[in-house]
Amino acid sequence: MPKRVDHDERRRRIAEALWRIASTRGLEGASLRDVAAEAGISLGQLQHYFRSKGDMLVFALEHVNELAARRVRARVEASATAPSPRVILRESVAEMLPLDDESRSGNLVQVAYFLQAVHDERLREHAKEGVPLLRALFADQIRRAMAEGQIAPDRDPDTEATLLICLVDGLTSYTLLDVHSPAEALALADAHLDRLFTP
Amino acid sequence: MPKRVDHDERRRRIAEALWRIASTRGLEGASLRDVAAEAGISLGQLQHYFRSKGDMLVFALEHVNELAARRVRARVEASATAPSPRVILRESVAEMLPLDDESRSGNLVQVAYFLQAVHDERLREHAKEGVPLLRALFADQIRRAMAEGQIAPDRDPDTEATLLICLVDGLTSYTLLDVHSPAEALALADAHLDRLFTP
Repeated sequence: MPKRVDHDERRRRIAEALWRIASTRGLEGASLRDVAAEAGISLGQLQHYFRSKGDMLVFALEHVNELAARRVRARVEASATAPSPRVILRESVAEMLPLDDESRSGNLVQVAYFLQAVHDERLREHAKEGVPLLRALFADQIRRAMAEGQIAPDRDPDTEATLLICLVDGLTSYTLLDVHSPAEALALADAHLDRLFTP
Repeated sequence: MPKRVDHDERRRRIAEALWRIASTRGLEGASLRDVAAEAGISLGQLQHYFRSKGDMLVFALEHVNELAARRVRARVEASATAPSPRVILRESVAEMLPLDDESRSGNLVQVAYFLQAVHDERLREHAKEGVPLLRALFADQIRRAMAEGQIAPDRDPDTEATLLICLVDGLTSYTLLDVHSPAEALALADAHLDRLFTP
């Protein structure tokens, strides 16, 4: 039987090579050739999967977002049998922050993408498409907590969800810059949640 | 009389050339030669002022931070004869957000720096050195508002100052990505300040 190439596996390997480059030196200077070399395949093989750098970036971004969403779900499910809104929000925030090497590296990838996306409309559409989903997830939990009397009824769930997402983004940047430690970033997020969760 | 070169003026011109490159295509691929071309001078002339890319980046970063600080002061002074803590915080936040083309461009420069700084320790030291100053400025205003009974006495001024800085950073990123408009970003910052300023 001839050896069959696992195409999904190869796409993932290419995406992972791209992430390693993004997290160490950024994406701007990276060519298709650089990524092929990092993935240990030829340029021709890479071009079989991705015809342009843009195609490759979009695939890798979707893959990184999918993995992040999966990690949040896993963390929430592991945390308790019936997690409260506060537990869900807290665990999601903890998963988004660069608290360990893996998430630090994932965050560096997203920063590299972010900088490209600001200058590239197609990538920007993809980069921002996860935000409404995350906002809806957070707003649902805030609404649930309001119904249960854990959050004051005059808060606006969408506004609170957006503020939380933006805060986590800023905490992430300053953690990557070593302005504060991962533990301090989490304590700051907890301080914010403490004040959100006041009846 | 021989024509004299205004060295400060030339340094500023070089820094501004660097910013134009940073805000359009990022700093990663930019060489000393690219910056010299953008500034309309020779590579040799540029090297008279900056021996390495690192030296040039540090100078340009300090200059961009100084201009930002000056804009905040000007805005605060223009806003009222005796500005309240809330006015000072609000005006500072408005100055930090990408609300117009000039500040958008300044923010893009800082994003480009940020990405370099994450991978470069020397640049990181410079990039983060403005944060404690800004935090102290914000914490002072929060302390003043607490003394005047505008903010609840159980808030911690340093924590609140840090949260505000991180929130503005995240609002900036999402505004640059067009996730929300400049006006929405300012409204979100106001919603956060509304809740900070509760006695």
